[in-house]
Amino acid sequence: MGLPDGLVASVIPAAAVIGILFAVFLWKRVAAIQLVGGRLISSQNGREYLLEEEQRGGEEEVVAKAADIQKSISEGASSFLATEYYYLGIFMVIMAVIISGLLSSVTPEDGRTRNDEVRNGIFSTISFVLGGATSILSGYLGMQIATYANARTAVEARKGIAPAFMCAFRSGAVMGFLLSGFGLLNLFLAITVFSRFFGDDWRGLFEAITGYGLGGSSIALFGRVAGGIYTKAADVGADLVGKVEKDIPEDDPRNPAVIADNVGDNVGDIAGMGADLFGSFAESTCAALVISAVSSLGTQHNYSGMMFPLLISATGIIVCLATTFIATDLKPAKVISEIEHTLKMQLIISTLLMTPVAYGVAVLSLPAEFIMNVPSSTADKPFDEKTVKNWYMFVCISAGLWGGLLVGLQTEYFTSNRYKPVQDVADACRTGAATDIIFGLALGYKSCIIPTIVIGVAIYVGNTLAGMFGIACCALGMLSTLATGLAIDAYGPISDNAGGIAEMAGMGEDIRERTDALDAAGNTTAAIGKGFAIGSAALVSLALFGAYVTRARIDMIHSSILDPRVFAGLLFGAMLPYWFSAMTMKSVGKAALAMVHEVRRQFNTIAGLMEGTTRPDYKRCVAISTQAAITEMIAPGALVMLTPVLVGALFGTQCLAGVLAGSLVSGVQLAVSMSNTGGAWDNAKKYIEAGATEHARELGGKGSDCHKAAVIGDTVGDPLKDTSGPSLNILIKLMAVESLVFAPFFYNCAHGQGLIFSWLGLAQ
Amino acid sequence: MGLPDGLVASVIPAAAVIGILFAVFLWKRVAAIQLVGGRLISSQNGREYLLEEEQRGGEEEVVAKAADIQKSISEGASSFLATEYYYLGIFMVIMAVIISGLLSSVTPEDGRTRNDEVRNGIFSTISFVLGGATSILSGYLGMQIATYANARTAVEARKGIAPAFMCAFRSGAVMGFLLSGFGLLNLFLAITVFSRFFGDDWRGLFEAITGYGLGGSSIALFGRVAGGIYTKAADVGADLVGKVEKDIPEDDPRNPAVIADNVGDNVGDIAGMGADLFGSFAESTCAALVISAVSSLGTQHNYSGMMFPLLISATGIIVCLATTFIATDLKPAKVISEIEHTLKMQLIISTLLMTPVAYGVAVLSLPAEFIMNVPSSTADKPFDEKTVKNWYMFVCISAGLWGGLLVGLQTEYFTSNRYKPVQDVADACRTGAATDIIFGLALGYKSCIIPTIVIGVAIYVGNTLAGMFGIACCALGMLSTLATGLAIDAYGPISDNAGGIAEMAGMGEDIRERTDALDAAGNTTAAIGKGFAIGSAALVSLALFGAYVTRARIDMIHSSILDPRVFAGLLFGAMLPYWFSAMTMKSVGKAALAMVHEVRRQFNTIAGLMEGTTRPDYKRCVAISTQAAITEMIAPGALVMLTPVLVGALFGTQCLAGVLAGSLVSGVQLAVSMSNTGGAWDNAKKYIEAGATEHARELGGKGSDCHKAAVIGDTVGDPLKDTSGPSLNILIKLMAVESLVFAPFFYNCAHGQGLIFSWLGLAQ
Repeated sequence: MGLPDGLVASVIPAAAVIGILFAVFLWKRVAAIQLVGGRLISSQNGREYLLEEEQRGGEEEVVAKAADIQKSISEGASSFLATEYYYLGIFMVIMAVIISGLLSSVTPEDGRTRNDEVRNGIFSTISFVLGGATSILSGYLGMQIATYANARTAVEARKGIAPAFMCAFRSGAVMGFLLSGFGLLNLFLAITVFSRFFGDDWRGLFEAITGYGLGGSSIALFGRVAGGIYTKAADVGADLVGKVEKDIPEDDPRNPAVIADNVGDNVGDIAGMGADLFGSFAESTCAALVISAVSSLGTQHNYSGMMFPLLISATGIIVCLATTFIATDLKPAKVISEIEHTLKMQLIISTLLMTPVAYGVAVLSLPAEFIMNVPSSTADKPFDEKTVKNWYMFVCISAGLWGGLLVGLQTEYFTSNRYKPVQDVADACRTGAATDIIFGLALGYKSCIIPTIVIGVAIYVGNTLAGMFGIACCALGMLSTLATGLAIDAYGPISDNAGGIAEMAGMGEDIRERTDALDAAGNTTAAIGKGFAIGSAALVSLALFGAYVTRARIDMIHSSILDPRVFAGLLFGAMLPYWFSAMTMKSVGKAALAMVHEVRRQFNTIAGLMEGTTRPDYKRCVAISTQAAITEMIAPGALVMLTPVLVGALFGTQCLAGVLAGSLVSGVQLAVSMSNTGGAWDNAKKYIEAGATEHARELGGKGSDCHKAAVIGDTVGDPLKDTSGPSLNILIKLMAVESLVFAPFFYNCAHGQGLIFSWLGLAQ
Repeated sequence: MGLPDGLVASVIPAAAVIGILFAVFLWKRVAAIQLVGGRLISSQNGREYLLEEEQRGGEEEVVAKAADIQKSISEGASSFLATEYYYLGIFMVIMAVIISGLLSSVTPEDGRTRNDEVRNGIFSTISFVLGGATSILSGYLGMQIATYANARTAVEARKGIAPAFMCAFRSGAVMGFLLSGFGLLNLFLAITVFSRFFGDDWRGLFEAITGYGLGGSSIALFGRVAGGIYTKAADVGADLVGKVEKDIPEDDPRNPAVIADNVGDNVGDIAGMGADLFGSFAESTCAALVISAVSSLGTQHNYSGMMFPLLISATGIIVCLATTFIATDLKPAKVISEIEHTLKMQLIISTLLMTPVAYGVAVLSLPAEFIMNVPSSTADKPFDEKTVKNWYMFVCISAGLWGGLLVGLQTEYFTSNRYKPVQDVADACRTGAATDIIFGLALGYKSCIIPTIVIGVAIYVGNTLAGMFGIACCALGMLSTLATGLAIDAYGPISDNAGGIAEMAGMGEDIRERTDALDAAGNTTAAIGKGFAIGSAALVSLALFGAYVTRARIDMIHSSILDPRVFAGLLFGAMLPYWFSAMTMKSVGKAALAMVHEVRRQFNTIAGLMEGTTRPDYKRCVAISTQAAITEMIAPGALVMLTPVLVGALFGTQCLAGVLAGSLVSGVQLAVSMSNTGGAWDNAKKYIEAGATEHARELGGKGSDCHKAAVIGDTVGDPLKDTSGPSLNILIKLMAVESLVFAPFFYNCAHGQGLIFSWLGLAQ
C-alpha cells in the first residue's frame, strides 16, 4: 500500500518549489502595482526609491518622503537583524559544540556502537545548524518583504481601500509562501541527503533530524524575545511621552522614538513571528517523523507512509495557494467593512479545502493498517503496540485543522471591537484606567476556556487513535494551512507600518483613516495568528514530549503524577512561564524607561522639535532599543535553554518529563490570556478613537478621559501581547525539542536518574 | 510503642480548651484595656458603647463618634454575614442531600455491604455539616472580635503606638486561638463520637470524617468569594470617586461608600480568611487521617499513632501560646519601626519552638516503624508497601514548618516597601500608571519562584519518606503554627479599620499617622498570611489528591501524564483558575461600577455632602455591596463545586486526577503572583504617601502624578490580592477534598471510567 516512492519524492519538493515560485510571482505583482503612476530608480547603494510621477498637487513630495521613511525603517531593521544574527551566530557555534560533544560522548548501549553515537552527534548538529539558518533566513526575508511593502501600501491607500488591501495582503502572502516553501524544501533535502549516511537506520536518521526543530526554535526564541523587547520598548516609550505627555498623535514624525517603533514592528511581529511559526512547522514534522520511525512504518521502511507529515505540508501549500486567489482575484475586499471578513474567509476556506485533501493523502500514502508503539504500561517491556488504521490519521489532521479554526474564531470574538467583550472593556474606561485593566485581565483569563477545551479534545482524540503520533498529526493539521495563517498574520504589521508611514509622510486625514481601518483588522488577525501559534505550539510540544519520553525510555509507571519527582517537576514547570514573563516584562519596562528619558531629553533640549522645524535624533532611540533587545534577550533565553539540560542531567528524565508537562499546561493559559488581554486593550482604544457606533461616540473619542484610560491599558498590554505572550509558546516547544535531542545524554546520566539523585543514592 | 490511649485522648481536647481559654483571657484584656479612662455602658439593644471620661478637651465626643462608627460597621458586617449564611444554609442542605444520596446509593463491592455504604453516606453528611458549621462559627467569631477591637485600637492609638499595637495584636490572637481551639476540639469530638458507630472499621470512620474538610472548605470558598467581592466593590468604588475624582482622603466620612468599605474589611479579610485557614487545617488533618487509616497504624488500631496529626496541632496551640507572650509581655513593639519586626519574630520564634516539639511528638506517639500503603506500580495489586520510621515524620513536619517560614519571609521581601522590589515598582510610577502596572505584574510573576521550589522540595521529601502521608504531614507542619499565623494575619484588617475609624471620627493627623504605620505593617503580614495560606493549600491539596487516588483505586499506570485522559484533564485543570479568576474579577469590576455610579449620584444630588454638613446615605452602598456579593458568589462557587462531580462522573476518575493536579500546579502560580502583585502595588502607594526616605520624597508624595499612578495600580491590585488570589487556594483544596469524598461514587460510575467514555465504549 501507499504511493510509489518516486512520486512521493517528487511531489514534496515540487509543492515546495511551487510555493516559492508563487511567492516570487506575488512579489512581482506587489512591485508592479507600485510602479503604476510612479517609477523605480536606483540610488547609488542599489536600494530602490519610490518616486511618483503622477501629479496630484505636491504629492510627489509625499511619496518621496514615504520612500525616505521606508529607507530609514528598512535600514534600521536590517542593521538590528545583522547585530542580532551576529550574536545568534555565536550562540549557534557554542550550541553546536555542546550538541555534538554531549551526544557523541554518550556511552553506547543496546547494541549501538560508538560510531552510532558519534554519527548521531554530528548529524544532529548539522540539522541544528540547518534549522537555525533556515529560521534566520525566514526572519530576514519576512522583514525584507514587509519593509518593501509597507511604504507601497501607504502610497496605494491614496487610491482607495481596495488597492491598499491588495498590496498588504499580497505582501503577507509572499512571506507565507516563501517560509512554508523553504521550510519544507530544506527539511526534505536534509532527510534525503542524511539518508545516504544512515542507510537503513531510519530511526537514527530521524532522531538526528530533530536537530532541525531545535535549531529553528532556538533561533525563534531569541528572535521573538529580542524583537519583542525592541518593538515594545520603542512603542511604550514613544506612546508614554508622545501621546500621554505631549499630546501628539501616534507615529508623529516629531517623536524621536517613531522610527524605532516602526522598525520594531518589522523585527518583532514579522521576523519574530515568522521564525516562531517556522519553528512550529519544523518541530511538528520532526516530532511526527521521529515517532513514526519506530513504528511499523519505519521498521518496514515504508517511505510513502513515513513521508505522510511532509505530504500534508506539501498539499497544504497548494491548498493555500488556491485559497489566496479568492482574496486577490475572486472576491477582494473593496470597502472597509469587508476587510476583516475577507481575511477570516481565507482561514475558513483553506480549512474547508484542506479537509478532503487530508483524507486523500491519508488513504493514499499510508498503509490501511500499521502498528504504532505507545508507552508501555508494565515495567517488563519497552513499549506496547497499537494498531492504527489510515483514516484515523485523517481524523487527527482534521481535529487539528478545525480545532485551529475554532481557536482562531474565538480569538477574533474576544479581540475584535465588533463584539461585546472588547466593547465592555472600552465601556469600563468610563471609570478610569483601573477598571479598564481589571476588565481586560478578566477577558484574557476567560478567553482561555475554549482553546483549552479544543486542545484537550485534540489531545484525547489524537492519542486515543494513534498515541503520540496522533497528537503530532493534530499539530500538523493545525499547521497545514500555515501559508494562509502567515499571510494574514503578516498583513497586520504591514498595515500598521503603512499607517505609520502615511502619518509621517503627512498624507492627510482620509489616507490615515484608510490605513487605520486596515490596521484594526490587522490587530485582530494578529491575535488570531497568535491563537494558532499557541494552539499548535501546545500540540507540537506534547508530541515532542511523547517522542522524548520514548527516547528517554520512560514508561507509564515512571511518568505518574503520583511520583514525587514528576509532580515536583510539574509544579516547577508550571512556574517557568511566570519566571520567564517576569524577566521579559521587566526588560521591556526598563528599556521603555530608558526610552522615555531619551525622548523627554530630546523634546526638552532640541529647539524647534515640537514645532516640526528640526528633526529629532531617531538614531539614538534606535540604538537604545537595539542595545536593550540584545542584552536583555540573554537571561530569558538562558533560562529556557538551560532548564531542560540542568533538570535532565541533575534531576533525571522523570523530573524533566514533569517540568515539560507543567510548563505546557501552565504556559498555554498564560500565553493565551496575555495575547488576548493585550489585543482587547489595543482594540478597545481603537474603538474609542474610531467612534463608529453610538456607544463608542458616547465614550468621548480621542483625547477624552476614557481615551486616556484606554491608552494606559493599551500600553500595559504591549509587553503582554507582543513580548511575553508570544515568546511563551516558543518556551514550551523549545524545552520539549531540546529534551528530545538530548534524551540519550540524559539517559546516560545515571540511567536517567539524574546525577544528584544518583549521587545521593536515591536512584529508584 | 506510642503513648497511652488515655493520655492522647486527654492531651488533644485539653490543648484545644487551653487555646480557647487563652483566647477568652486575651479578650478580657482587650476589653479591660479599653476601660482605662472610660467606661462601658449598655445601650438598649445590649450592645456595648465606648465612652471616655478622661477629659482631654472635647475628646469624649471623638470617642463617642468612634463607638458610633464601630456600631455601624459591626451592624453592617453582622447583617451581611446573616444574609450570606442564610444562603449558605440553603446550600448546605442541598449539598447534604446530594452527599448522603450519592454516597448511600453506591453499589457495595469488595465485601462491603449496603449498610456500610449507607453509614458512610450518613456520617459523611454529618461531618460535612459539622465542618461547615464550625467554619461559619469561625468566620462569625472572627468578625465579632475584629469589629470589637478596631474602635478600641483607634482609641488606644491616642495614647501611643505601644498600646494600640497591643490591642490590635491581642485581638488578632483572640481570633487565632479561638479558631484553632474550636477547629481541633470539634474534629476530635466528631472522631470520638463517630468511633462508637464505626467500631473497628477505622478506615470507614476516617473516610466519613473527610466530610468535615469538605464542609469547612465549601463554606470557606463562598465566604472568601462573597467577602472578597463585597470588600473590593466597596473599596474600588470608594477610591475611584473619593480619592481620584473628588480628591478627598481615604476613609473620609463624606464618602458614601466608606462604611461599606470598612464592613468589607471585616467580612472579607477576617471572616473569609478565618474560614479559609480553618478549612486548610481541617483538610490537612483529614487527609493525614484518611491516608494513615489504611496504613499499619490504622489496621493495627494504634490510637496514639493515628492521632499524630491532632497531637501536632494540639502541641502547636501550646507553642503559639508561649510565643504570644513574647509580643505581649517580653518584647512588645514600642515604636513604629519595631512593629513589622515584632510580628515577623512571632513567626520565627514559633517555628523555632515547634521544631523540637514536633520531634518529641513524632518519636513518642508513633511506633518506631510502621507501614504506609503507596500507589501500586503494577496492575496486579492494589498498592505497594513502604516502611516508615517515626523520625521521618519529624522531617516532614519540619520541612513544612520551615518551608512555610521561608515562603512567608520571601513574601515579606517582595511586598514590604522597606525592600527594593516594591521601591522599584514605586519608582516606575514616574512614567505613569502603565509602567507601574507592568513592573508590578513582573514582580508578582517573579515571586512565584521561591514558593514553587519550597513546595516542590517539601513534596519530594514528604513523598519519598512516607508517600502521601508525608505530604499531608508537611502541610500539617506548615499549619502547626496556625494560631500565630492567624493572629498576625487578623492584625492587618483590624489596624486598617482602626485607621478608618480614626479618620472618620476626626481624631487628628498624629493619631492617623500611628494607625497608618500599624496598617502598613499589616499589609505585609497580610501578604505573609496569604503566602502561608497558598503554600499550605498546595500541600494539603496534594495530600488530599493522594488520598483520592487511593480511594478511587487509581494506580501509577493510570495516572501517567502520557495517558490522554490524564493529560487532557491536566490541561483543563490548569485553565480552571483562570476561568474562576475571570468570573471573580469581572464581578468585582461590575459591582465597583455600580458603586461608583451610586457614590457619584450621592455627591451630585445630596446638597452639603462635600461640605460635610449632611451625612451620605451609607446604607445604599452597603446594600449594593451585599447584593453584588451574594449574587456574584454563585457562578464561581458553582464552577468549583460542580467541576469535580461532573468530570468524575462523566469522564472518569483518571481525568479527574489530571484536573486536580493541573488546577494545583497552575493555581498556585496564579494565586501567589496575584497576591504579591496586589500587595506590592498597595505598599508602593503607601511608600510614596509616607515619604519616609529620600527616594520616596523624590516621587512627590500624596497628590503628585506618581501618587495618582500608584493609586491606579493599587486599585487594579485590589481584586487580585483580596478576591481572586486568596480564593484560588480554596479552589484547589476544595476540588481535591470534594473528589476524595465522592471517590466511591465516581468509582461506581462505570468503575471509574466515567459515564461518557463507558457509553461510547471507550472504557480502558
